[in-house]
Amino acid sequence: MDPQNMSVAIEDMFNLDFSIPRVGTPTLESPLKDVIFVEDSERISYCADPTANDCLRAKGMPIPAFIAAGPRRLLYHDAAWTRAAIVTCGGLCPGLNDVIKSLVNTLYYVYGVDNIFGIQYGYSGLVPSFGLKPISLTPDVVDAIHTTGGTILGSSRGEQSTEEIVRTLDRLNINILFTIGGDGTQRGAHDIAVELKKRNLPISVVGIPKTIDNDLNFMDKTFGFETAVQETGPIISCAHNEAKGAFNGIGLVRLMGRDSGFIAANASLANSLVNFCLIPEVEFQLRGEHGFLEALEHRLLRKHHAVIVVAEGAGQNLITDDSAPQKDKSGNILHKDIGLFLKDMIIKYFKERKIEISMKYFDPSYIIRSTPTCGMDSIFCLNLAQHAVHAAMAGMTDLVVGNWQGYFTYVPIPLATMARRKIDPRGQLWQSVLLTTRQNQDWK
Amino acid sequence: MDPQNMSVAIEDMFNLDFSIPRVGTPTLESPLKDVIFVEDSERISYCADPTANDCLRAKGMPIPAFIAAGPRRLLYHDAAWTRAAIVTCGGLCPGLNDVIKSLVNTLYYVYGVDNIFGIQYGYSGLVPSFGLKPISLTPDVVDAIHTTGGTILGSSRGEQSTEEIVRTLDRLNINILFTIGGDGTQRGAHDIAVELKKRNLPISVVGIPKTIDNDLNFMDKTFGFETAVQETGPIISCAHNEAKGAFNGIGLVRLMGRDSGFIAANASLANSLVNFCLIPEVEFQLRGEHGFLEALEHRLLRKHHAVIVVAEGAGQNLITDDSAPQKDKSGNILHKDIGLFLKDMIIKYFKERKIEISMKYFDPSYIIRSTPTCGMDSIFCLNLAQHAVHAAMAGMTDLVVGNWQGYFTYVPIPLATMARRKIDPRGQLWQSVLLTTRQNQDWK
Amino acid sequence: MDPQNMSVAIEDMFNLDFSIPRVGTPTLESPLKDVIFVEDSERISYCADPTANDCLRAKGMPIPAFIAAGPRRLLYHDAAWTRAAIVTCGGLCPGLNDVIKSLVNTLYYVYGVDNIFGIQYGYSGLVPSFGLKPISLTPDVVDAIHTTGGTILGSSRGEQSTEEIVRTLDRLNINILFTIGGDGTQRGAHDIAVELKKRNLPISVVGIPKTIDNDLNFMDKTFGFETAVQETGPIISCAHNEAKGAFNGIGLVRLMGRDSGFIAANASLANSLVNFCLIPEVEFQLRGEHGFLEALEHRLLRKHHAVIVVAEGAGQNLITDDSAPQKDKSGNILHKDIGLFLKDMIIKYFKERKIEISMKYFDPSYIIRSTPTCGMDSIFCLNLAQHAVHAAMAGMTDLVVGNWQGYFTYVPIPLATMARRKIDPRGQLWQSVLLTTRQNQDWK
Amino acid sequence: MDPQNMSVAIEDMFNLDFSIPRVGTPTLESPLKDVIFVEDSERISYCADPTANDCLRAKGMPIPAFIAAGPRRLLYHDAAWTRAAIVTCGGLCPGLNDVIKSLVNTLYYVYGVDNIFGIQYGYSGLVPSFGLKPISLTPDVVDAIHTTGGTILGSSRGEQSTEEIVRTLDRLNINILFTIGGDGTQRGAHDIAVELKKRNLPISVVGIPKTIDNDLNFMDKTFGFETAVQETGPIISCAHNEAKGAFNGIGLVRLMGRDSGFIAANASLANSLVNFCLIPEVEFQLRGEHGFLEALEHRLLRKHHAVIVVAEGAGQNLITDDSAPQKDKSGNILHKDIGLFLKDMIIKYFKERKIEISMKYFDPSYIIRSTPTCGMDSIFCLNLAQHAVHAAMAGMTDLVVGNWQGYFTYVPIPLATMARRKIDPRGQLWQSVLLTTRQNQDWK
Repeated sequence: MDPQNMSVAIEDMFNLDFSIPRVGTPTLESPLKDVIFVEDSERISYCADPTANDCLRAKGMPIPAFIAAGPRRLLYHDAAWTRAAIVTCGGLCPGLNDVIKSLVNTLYYVYGVDNIFGIQYGYSGLVPSFGLKPISLTPDVVDAIHTTGGTILGSSRGEQSTEEIVRTLDRLNINILFTIGGDGTQRGAHDIAVELKKRNLPISVVGIPKTIDNDLNFMDKTFGFETAVQETGPIISCAHNEAKGAFNGIGLVRLMGRDSGFIAANASLANSLVNFCLIPEVEFQLRGEHGFLEALEHRLLRKHHAVIVVAEGAGQNLITDDSAPQKDKSGNILHKDIGLFLKDMIIKYFKERKIEISMKYFDPSYIIRSTPTCGMDSIFCLNLAQHAVHAAMAGMTDLVVGNWQGYFTYVPIPLATMARRKIDPRGQLWQSVLLTTRQNQDWK
Repeated sequence: MDPQNMSVAIEDMFNLDFSIPRVGTPTLESPLKDVIFVEDSERISYCADPTANDCLRAKGMPIPAFIAAGPRRLLYHDAAWTRAAIVTCGGLCPGLNDVIKSLVNTLYYVYGVDNIFGIQYGYSGLVPSFGLKPISLTPDVVDAIHTTGGTILGSSRGEQSTEEIVRTLDRLNINILFTIGGDGTQRGAHDIAVELKKRNLPISVVGIPKTIDNDLNFMDKTFGFETAVQETGPIISCAHNEAKGAFNGIGLVRLMGRDSGFIAANASLANSLVNFCLIPEVEFQLRGEHGFLEALEHRLLRKHHAVIVVAEGAGQNLITDDSAPQKDKSGNILHKDIGLFLKDMIIKYFKERKIEISMKYFDPSYIIRSTPTCGMDSIFCLNLAQHAVHAAMAGMTDLVVGNWQGYFTYVPIPLATMARRKIDPRGQLWQSVLLTTRQNQDWK
Repeated sequence: MDPQNMSVAIEDMFNLDFSIPRVGTPTLESPLKDVIFVEDSERISYCADPTANDCLRAKGMPIPAFIAAGPRRLLYHDAAWTRAAIVTCGGLCPGLNDVIKSLVNTLYYVYGVDNIFGIQYGYSGLVPSFGLKPISLTPDVVDAIHTTGGTILGSSRGEQSTEEIVRTLDRLNINILFTIGGDGTQRGAHDIAVELKKRNLPISVVGIPKTIDNDLNFMDKTFGFETAVQETGPIISCAHNEAKGAFNGIGLVRLMGRDSGFIAANASLANSLVNFCLIPEVEFQLRGEHGFLEALEHRLLRKHHAVIVVAEGAGQNLITDDSAPQKDKSGNILHKDIGLFLKDMIIKYFKERKIEISMKYFDPSYIIRSTPTCGMDSIFCLNLAQHAVHAAMAGMTDLVVGNWQGYFTYVPIPLATMARRKIDPRGQLWQSVLLTTRQNQDWK
Repeated sequence: MDPQNMSVAIEDMFNLDFSIPRVGTPTLESPLKDVIFVEDSERISYCADPTANDCLRAKGMPIPAFIAAGPRRLLYHDAAWTRAAIVTCGGLCPGLNDVIKSLVNTLYYVYGVDNIFGIQYGYSGLVPSFGLKPISLTPDVVDAIHTTGGTILGSSRGEQSTEEIVRTLDRLNINILFTIGGDGTQRGAHDIAVELKKRNLPISVVGIPKTIDNDLNFMDKTFGFETAVQETGPIISCAHNEAKGAFNGIGLVRLMGRDSGFIAANASLANSLVNFCLIPEVEFQLRGEHGFLEALEHRLLRKHHAVIVVAEGAGQNLITDDSAPQKDKSGNILHKDIGLFLKDMIIKYFKERKIEISMKYFDPSYIIRSTPTCGMDSIFCLNLAQHAVHAAMAGMTDLVVGNWQGYFTYVPIPLATMARRKIDPRGQLWQSVLLTTRQNQDWK
């Protein structure tokens, strides 16, 4: 069975808490009509194979399963009195504006909440000393924002004082905070939720997880990822044209993927022009009989051109550098840049070998991550936002909206951020990449 | 829980046969290395909620589950002697060429099959009297075909004699037939498989289901659907511009969807410019207090423009016509055309009401279905094809490749073609459409 | 020499009036700095070949030449007191919003005019009985409108009373009226200018000619045309895919072009998939040895698919119909629809010949004309608008902005609307089409 | 009058030779039928204003005018015996494949030449020691190449021995050589033509000038330029989204333009999101009251984001570096990279000023230059190629195909390569840029 989704071993799942965190007991009737309400008891199995679950049952173990997302019959927050805030953090990703728009529209039209605030420039906007005023958000304001990439709220990296944020939320009488961001952002959201609980403030904190790398555990996919893969298409075509346009031409494309190669791998599948795909999950050597550079030379001798796609976190073992690893403001380890390193190594190698090459380097990250979403990805954003509002109005907190095997779920933040997903080199995704690039033909 | 996937009630599942049909016992070692083989016993639960399954178990009932797709350790067909054929049937759909390309590449590079034939113009190409010669397919031939819409093999509608097809397969020494097509095509494939069995001919017939409408049961999605939804984007923008460009301007867009409104509904979500979405699953009246035309009038009086998306199979109850229903060559019931009918009714209504309108009619079906695939949809085609080859080489037959809750599956053809999937008006998809279009604001 | 531009014979040019019409003598200093002002005496030769001009000179004849467009040193209208109005008329065309935006920005930022009004829904917006209020236009309002097709002002067809329009302009204290529209619109603008002169009202009427068909005399090109040609690309690809996807498949694409085939011809050049291009300028027969249908049959027998592009005004001789020609509200003769007629004739012909075909019909006009402009076309709109403002501020009137041999010009309206441009069948454009389609290979 | 086209002063034109260079007297009847032949005497005026020409005539001076391009009644080369070769040199540019395709099709279908060779990797392919074999080119081979960017022939920079090239042409019995490339390439072509003349070899050398920068004198535009401008659109949108997505966000986009800012200026017009446009023709200072950095600071304080477009050759005065200027293999002076220099200077400045900024740098050159052409640009390529073939078959040599004020022309190579075109800062183009960016609002 394709293990792509099940990236955490089933036996590691039992200490995890899949229960619903709440700020209080919901007692208000939902205004929704003619819809199918979801019961708090509904679950989505972690494991799709019934045999595996049988096996657990036989051992008397519980079956790990996620909370089913969806509208609840009873709400906690009273729409008339509710003040909601939305914040976007970290790097850009296609879909931020779609999520913002759908949060606003769902709050306003479905639940009748009309006090909605956009926090400017990430968590900084919740710290008074930055002097950033919240923006009032209405359906009119957000009507066309989904046609543009980026985020109308602005974003920022970096932690801010949980205490100050909590004070601001309290002072502004916010009842619901939606946090759109990556691991760091959601960990920050968890800290806020914990602090709020400590202070007995019934403010719901609901996250929409954002990682263009698509490497979140317990999620089929994250928003923006599909658009990102699609956007690589014209770039890789250009790299191919540049490579073929010169004798021994090399098109080297550095793509996003700090710890995982999902974008690089899928880009290689979607655009069958890639000859070598390098990802963090598959270590490789540069030199020697099994080295990448020798493989590249074989390829050039055969075909006189090559397209290489490399995820930014690939080949970290190769970059010899004694300095301690650095982190960005969000706490992500800043990898040494494999792209420029690889470019230099390739040029050096062929200079030594006295083979003339023509190197063209592409780093399209900013172009990819700041485009608007396409087709189904925008619908996915819309659904994530709707489910976030359903959770928040029902008084849930300290969770993110996930999706599992086609169903939307609610995942407690500590669970969602416990580890990152990676590509299994023996699984279908990587095997397809090998088949499509046929890189092992030149590379033993 | 969102019942979008589970369109067949769980109690109706027990008489269904989920076992693996085969032409013979596989005994040959697979040439694949370093991959995770899938066991024949692996299954994917029909129902994702463990409680539902528990309930069945309590009653002593079996748990319905699909066969897990993937490479098998043992094969039936011997690559060196295998001759494979590929046929595309029915209307165009984005991804046909992607599937063809990936079938050829997987057969050739993964399993070492180098006798691959493309059958021209659907099943007609297997009937000698049409005089159509098979095309030899190699990786070189298919290298760039995925950048073009349509099918390089040509297609056709209509049944052909099962006997003649079986004779041709036998005469050409074909061992594997891949049938890419809709319900009718796969029913034909089942007939071929049954006839082959009767004659003791160990020829594998493996289908890749094709329906741009995305209305196949037991499948999360079908190939081409995501591209179709994306392609509606610029068309609906144009309809909006035309509607706004004239006083009381109406942009009426007829989209595909014979029995289900998946394209219309998703297009309305992906492009938040749609004011009314009409689908087969939700009946409506034209006239009277709750009629669509009155709602449209309300909208025009308020806003002086409107965009309407209508699935081709919507409003069949409205088209008064005594003639018996007609069928196309594939056996699909030919619906009366709601698009032109609705256009006429709207014009007539406002003429009666002496309200000047400006009607712009769009029928983009041919433009949508003949484009190349985008991003993830092309990867989906690639995966479907790989799994079709895995099944065929392992000697399976009389099944199609499905996907369920993110996993690829093998679904016996009689199961796959037993009924069509529809939108549940109380489910999340349609509720999102209502929220996005807000059509009930004008339409009571 | 390529006579594509010089569509009016040089001898017919001498009775034409190329002088500058004005509402009064400009006396105010222009606020522009560091620019090259254009003198009223500067001209652009009608004929590019100096020998032709020599020849005229030898006969003692004047050399026909257009007024050079550009900023004038002296202005008539005082920016501080100027109230400008903008109206868009007739069918949609890519670039309407670009022109509106650039008119507003040039008036506001370059000349300091801040009373700018958008007239709603064409000339109707200047007739009080329609009850349409002018919209106030500022740089903020128009900031992003160029990213959307259509016109934010709305449009309409049809003449309105010149008297009423003049009264409205007077009543609203308008000093400058910009009319964006086709032949009919500009003839209306001329009538307004004449009436204003009669009443001694110093109101400038300056037109920006709009015809997606690109068939204006004395203009290299009109805005929207290049975008229209580009937009045909994917449509024609789809027609090709549909044609190849069925045995004897025919993709029939009806394109815009009432009296001229510029879009059809250029679309055939830009997309080398067209097999037959039919335009109004080249008459043809359907039946008989030299008939189109026989040519199509030859093609189908050879290749089993064909793509046909037909301009809407082609083959008018073929449509036998005794009724008098009808006109639309703008006074354009409504041609009988060659597209559907041709579709029917083709189906009938092959039915008689007992040859099975598969006909796919495309009418993408609304999709093409309502898209936003691309690249250079948007810059062209911007330049047209700037030159319109330069003319208006200098007190010119009763003229349109033209462009001739790469230069922008001012063309008196009676001159601009005297006749329509057509393709010369012996000229380079049509010869290139014949070379690219190679339609004469099958068609004698 | 807009002096954009007339970049060389009229008085400098009189020592120039505008006559037709030929390898011999044409005597063979052209096979073209029903076309308008162009006479050798036909000319296109250099100056469009008849007054200017009158003035020259009054002084008894000749009127500078270009040779009109087009098919000639009499040919020199005999199609049946003709062997043509095509070579592409220098960097990639949209349209190379369009030109190759149209050369092949015109030679083959219009004139009946069926010996056509593609020279691989630029002039290197004509030097035997590189061991590169010519490729045989037929209409089938080139049928779909225009849908892909790059050049199917490959390209290279650098001079090769004129003697060796001439020997190869002679040895291969080539009668016509088409050279597609920039200044350096065409100077090489001139050297070849001179050497051929010396040796009495009647081989026509006809150039199609290629410069994505659009800075060729005596040409309205060069192929690929319009596509390049269009391709900047999504990139600049992304830069804008990145800039707005962070507090004090700066999107810095480096575009092509070694000696002229045509791409940067037009990109700023086509995408009204650019706040500062920096080009080689307008010198500027970084620091001080009138410095760019202070202007940028003003902008950031007002708006907190900025988009900067810089042509690669801008601000050369700023880069203090004692080393002698370097040249690439084509002899182009390698400018110091203003893009990365500016990025560093900006970062340094704001660090000093203790203002936090977020810098995003874009260098999309390879992505832009390797795309396929769009719309009218592909038709332009087609026309250039047709006129090149007309010239060559008529025995012309040592010239390039130009276009002037909408007409195609033949320009002797020494004339075409004598100087590069630049933007006039007082002309309409730059004035429009100032109006659109309004950069002088912050920058005094």
